[in-house]
Formats: sequence, structure tokens, C-alpha cells
Amino acid sequence: MSEAPSQSRIWAGASLVTMTQGRYHIIADGAMVVNQGRIAWLGPRASLPARFNGMPRHDFGGGIITPGLIDCHTHLVFGGDRSLEFEQRLNGVSYAEIAAAGGGILSTVNATRAASEDELLALAEQRLKLLLADGITCMEIKSGYGLTLESELKMLRVAKRIGKKYALQVRTTLLAAHAVPPEYQGRPDDYIDLICQHWIPQVAAQGLADAVDGFCEHLAFSPAQIARVFDAAHQAGLPVKLHAEQLSSLGGSTLAARYQALSADHLEYATDRDAAAMAKSGTVAVLLPGACYMLRETQFPPVAHFRRHGVPMALASDINPGTSPACSLRLMLNMACTLFRLTPEEALAGVTTHAAKALGLSDSLGTLEAGKQADFVHWPVNHPAELSYWLGGQIANTVVFRGEQR
Amino acid sequence: MSEAPSQSRIWAGASLVTMTQGRYHIIADGAMVVNQGRIAWLGPRASLPARFNGMPRHDFGGGIITPGLIDCHTHLVFGGDRSLEFEQRLNGVSYAEIAAAGGGILSTVNATRAASEDELLALAEQRLKLLLADGITCMEIKSGYGLTLESELKMLRVAKRIGKKYALQVRTTLLAAHAVPPEYQGRPDDYIDLICQHWIPQVAAQGLADAVDGFCEHLAFSPAQIARVFDAAHQAGLPVKLHAEQLSSLGGSTLAARYQALSADHLEYATDRDAAAMAKSGTVAVLLPGACYMLRETQFPPVAHFRRHGVPMALASDINPGTSPACSLRLMLNMACTLFRLTPEEALAGVTTHAAKALGLSDSLGTLEAGKQADFVHWPVNHPAELSYWLGGQIANTVVFRGEQR
Ligand SMILES: [Zn+2]
Ligand SMILES: [Zn+2]
Repeated sequence: MSEAPSQSRIWAGASLVTMTQGRYHIIADGAMVVNQGRIAWLGPRASLPARFNGMPRHDFGGGIITPGLIDCHTHLVFGGDRSLEFEQRLNGVSYAEIAAAGGGILSTVNATRAASEDELLALAEQRLKLLLADGITCMEIKSGYGLTLESELKMLRVAKRIGKKYALQVRTTLLAAHAVPPEYQGRPDDYIDLICQHWIPQVAAQGLADAVDGFCEHLAFSPAQIARVFDAAHQAGLPVKLHAEQLSSLGGSTLAARYQALSADHLEYATDRDAAAMAKSGTVAVLLPGACYMLRETQFPPVAHFRRHGVPMALASDINPGTSPACSLRLMLNMACTLFRLTPEEALAGVTTHAAKALGLSDSLGTLEAGKQADFVHWPVNHPAELSYWLGGQIANTVVFRGEQR
Repeated sequence: MSEAPSQSRIWAGASLVTMTQGRYHIIADGAMVVNQGRIAWLGPRASLPARFNGMPRHDFGGGIITPGLIDCHTHLVFGGDRSLEFEQRLNGVSYAEIAAAGGGILSTVNATRAASEDELLALAEQRLKLLLADGITCMEIKSGYGLTLESELKMLRVAKRIGKKYALQVRTTLLAAHAVPPEYQGRPDDYIDLICQHWIPQVAAQGLADAVDGFCEHLAFSPAQIARVFDAAHQAGLPVKLHAEQLSSLGGSTLAARYQALSADHLEYATDRDAAAMAKSGTVAVLLPGACYMLRETQFPPVAHFRRHGVPMALASDINPGTSPACSLRLMLNMACTLFRLTPEEALAGVTTHAAKALGLSDSLGTLEAGKQADFVHWPVNHPAELSYWLGGQIANTVVFRGEQR
């Protein structure tokens, strides 16, 4: 990824869907002046200041421009896949039989540990290319399938390499507290000790993670265990986020709010009290409709609570081999509308404005505004609702990252 | 679309997922000899007969080859779209309010009537390109949003032009009995008379339709009315198919079977008796998971009945502006597995072998077999289950139509 500043250029001839404050705020027949990879000016084309007259100009001849899409919750890097397990389940093999044969998350952990850094990168790139085609310009990538220090570091290094190799901003997250590794079965507290005392300080010292995440659930870690991880993260100067309330209500999201978490994610079983706590701490609710859909979940996140308390809602692919092998973030807009009854405007804010906030990047990303990074997508449609309406298919046709066409 | 025969060529270095009898029937490390747009030979690469040795060869270096995908039920051609209505519904506007404001199917009928043939073509092409990217080599396209003779003919001409312009085989279907047009409100039998006595004979005489379809439902036409349409179709020498049992059980699918229909489609409310009748007549069950998903339908087609009676199941996008704005047929595989619990093998058969049967094209399409048309897709995956597993994203990377790379 080139860090060189782009040349100055005017992008014009499309409606600008600015998404300021998470609303469409459309500028019809707009123009956007980009300089040094940032938005220098934007407004109606007819109001373009004379001082920009000599600049090279790209005319889209219609369509809309949105901020670049931000996928704020992914497990993009992993070894193997679980397509054969998916097939076995549909052929009537029980989950217990699959687990007994080494399937489930353990198969992903084993494959991830066994793969070299280059192999993991090559596998991730296949999926990455599908996601990028949808107009993603910023992506969060978690560790969490290594569950040894070496393999967690390996995953984070792969994520960092993706950010260097592609015209894409990558944020990395240490998710060592994803599952109890086989070596620590029955001793989860020992594993948490290890993470807190050794792994988090090392990862922070190497600058390999921008945040620390955990999975708070009966089959993973308790709120008390997660609180220790969060303490260690804060001591290392890293913000936190949490997989919370996916399968049951343990109060993980309220815990996350107490730690000023950037986001609490999943949230199918979050309560009104959780929503109130998240609103107070400015914690974003990251909703993951792909996982709900694939699991045929009927308990959906409490969108009404989030709206009432003013909790910003983000959407993400959650791409992972077990519960959401999702290779399209735009599809998540449709699923959030169809399943969770988000409006198309809320859905689009969920992958722009509020996704930026979920990554702590609101200052530079998430809206089309003067001073922000020039990451944007041109779509050959008439209205932003179409981005949620069309089911599947790759619609994005021009993607600009830091002022440069990708 | 060029009708010129392709040069001879060997396509090798991938596993051939032949889909004969609707099963994977995989030939590992296969080779396929194509001559004059047809498959001349296929088998393991190591068994390639010496007589083909001098031919030009394309080596894929891995991945799988499947038959070209067939979308056997589409409403690809229409004016306008309903994205704003989609947005209004999610903002709490009632269906009644939208209908009162001229929304719903009436808005599509009005927009379709108002559009010129060239305009309709341009609109359809935007959606077509998204669908084609998924590896579709044959597509059925219905009329049914014109509901006047002139506008129904216009839709069918647009469909025919698509088949001429693109490397794609198009089958056209007259769906005049889709809805009672505004001019015939309260007089559906008069409209049926018109279709039977004038429209079907004219469409048949002009060679504009390969089949005749109808919508058998309380809000559309009764089984008795559909039977008259079917009689007229048979008299004109055209096979029939039917939208049946989508919202209630009226026995449309058993009626369709009585007329040796190519397919009965939707079928959420089909009964065991319907399935038995369809099995006897060789009528394919075309399942449309996109519509189920978008309508948040909880009554799914009776897959167990179809399996028990041996009714072949096909899948289609049903692309239409109201209930399934689906621009990816591969996504329908995932939805059929996730929602209807089809196996990935059944799902793939549903867009190849059985979709060909649903269009009466089993002799030339739907499997990789010597003598069949050389329509196939190369996918950079290890196993065909991945085609159902990955949720969204455009995976197909080489599409060959009648022996020519598209
Ligand atoms: Zn996750
Ligand atoms: Zn239909």
C-alpha cells in the first residue's frame, strides 16, 4: 500500500451521500476536491470555488458516492475452512460427532497453528479480494485461532502484512481470550493469567494490536475473567471490545461499557440496561447479521433499545469459518434490514460512520467531510437505499483509498 | 452472442464436478475436450486419449469445474425498482399506504409499460451483469409486468435481445397471467379470455415464448382460470409452468402436474399429495429461497416430501423488484442450505442438472457429459460444498459458454 500522497483531483458528477451524524445528508450533483489523500472541499458542483478550477477532474456521470465501507469485526485470517463440516451437518451428522472427529473451532485452531505465515496470508487474501470488491477501505482483523503466543503473533503479523500489501487500512485486535485452548482445558484461569501477564504486554510492546477483545459466554470466558483481560489491556494502553450476549445474557456488554469499550459485538441477548450502559460510555453496538442468519437465530439484537438510548449501531461481516463465512459486507446491509429491521440509512451508517467509531477512527474515517481521509466508493445506483435493497451481486464500481483509485 | 463454433481445446487441471444424475460425481484432476461448442470427451487427465494430443490446452492448475449455472426462474426485465418502497416499509410506512400511493406491483407495471424497449434492456443489463458474474450460462426470463399485449411482447423481445447480445442462452416465458391488470379489476375471467384467445396464439406465432406461466393464488388467479391458460398454451404447442402454493395451498402444483408442467415454482404450501403428483408427471420443484428470505417466510417448501417422492428440486434467483431483488444465484445455494436444509450437493444440482430439466433442456445442458453443450464454470475452490458455504462474494473466475471463454 502506497503511503505517498495522491495528486490533487476533483471527483464530480455524482450525489454525495456524506453520512455525517450517521444520516444520508445527500449533496445532489456534488463535487469533492481531494488533496494529499484528504478531502479538501466538498459541496454542490455548482458551488465549486474558483481556486480549484485548474485541477484534474473525474466526472462519474451519475450514481452516488458514499464513504468507503468499514468492516469493523472480522476473523479474516484462519487456516482451513469448514465447508465440509457445513456439508456434513446438512447430511445429518451431529455436532457431537463432528466435534469428536476433531471438527468445530478446534479444527480451525489446528489448521491455523499448522499454517506458515505465508500460507495464512495466501488463504486470507482469497477471501479479502471478495470483500474488497464490495468497496471496503478499512478492515479490523482479529487473532484468536492460534491460542498460543507464537500463533497469535503470527495471525497479527499476517493482518499487518495485509495492511501493507493492499490499498486498505487495517486495524488489528488481539483476541487471545476467544476460547480455552486444548492445552488449558479445565484451567481457564491459568490461560487468562498467561494472556494478562505475558501476551498482552508482549503484543503491546511489538505494536501488533490496536485493541484487545474477548468472548464472554458460558462456553468461553466469564465476566470476571474478561475483566482481568480488560485490566491488563488498559495497563498496556490498549482499548477494549467484547463478543458479548451472543448466546445468553451474562452482562458482558455492561462490563464492556464499564471499561469504555470501543464496541460490544453480537448482542442478541443484550438488555435495556446493557443498552443504557453502552450509551453512557459511548460504546458502539456491532451487529453481525451473517452469524444470526447462518445459525438460524431467532433472537435478534434489541434494536429498539439501542435506538431509544442512542447507542450507535455498526454492522460487520464477522467473516469466520464457523458461523459466518461471509464474503460481502454489502450483503450484511440487506440482512440487517431484512432480519433486524434496520432502515437502509441505519444500515449504511453501520458500515461507515458508526463502524469508524467502533474502531476509534471517527476523526479520520466514516463520513465525507472536509479534512477526512479521501476513502470513498462510487456506486452506479440512484439512491443509497439500493445498497441495502439489492440482494447479492457486486455493485461497487470505483473505490478510492486515500485519494487514489484502487 | 456468437453462434460460430469454437475451436477445439482441452480444458484441464481441475476436478470435474459432473453433476450427472444430480450428484457430484467428481473426476479428480480431470480433462475435458471441447469441439464445436460441445463436450467431445471428459475423464481423468491421465486417461486422455492420444488422438487429442495436438490440441491447444488450458491448464487451470487446480480448483473445480462445474456445469454452467442455470437460473430457471427470473423476472429480470422490469421498469423502475422498489428500493424506496423497501426503505419506506422499514421506516414504518404500511403496505396499505404504499399501495394507496401507487406502490407495489402496480408501480412496476406502470414503469414497465412506460419504458421503451431500449430502456428496459438497459435496466435489465445492469442486473444481468451482476448475475452473469456468478457463472450463469442459461437464464429463463418471464414477461408479466406489462399486462397489455403490446407491453408483454415488448418484455419478451427484450429478453430475446439479451440472448442475442450476451454469451448466454435465454429461455422466454409468457407470464401474462401474473396479476389482474388495472383495466380488468373485478373481471379476471375477461382477462383470462383475452390471454387464451388472442395473446397466447400471437406470442406463439411470433416465436417469442418457450413456455407459458401463471400465478395461482387468491390474489391472482384460481386453478380453474389457470387451467384455461394451460389449455390454450397446449393448443399453441407450448409447455407450461406455474407459480403455485406460495402463500396458500390451492392445488396449483397438482394442476400443473396434470398438464405435464415443466415445473411448479415456490411451493411453500405444497402437500405430500402435490409432491406425489409432481413426481409422477416429472414436474420439477423450483424453490426460490430469496423470496422466502426477503418475505421472512417461516413456512418453507416441503423438501422432505420432494425427497421422498423423488421430485427433482431446482433453485432460482426469482429476481424481481418486489420480493426478491436477488443479483446472485450462488447466494441462493447458501440460502437453500441454510433456510431449507438442502445439502450442498442438492443445491448445486438445483442450479445445474435440475434447473436444466425445469427448462426442458436436459438433453443439452445441466451436466458435464460427452455430447452436451460446453457451458461450464471454473471456481478456485477445493470442494463443491464451498459454493454453498461461502456467503456472498463473487467466486466464479472463468466462465465458458459453448466452448468459448466469456
Ligand atoms: Zn467475532
Ligand atoms: Zn416468479
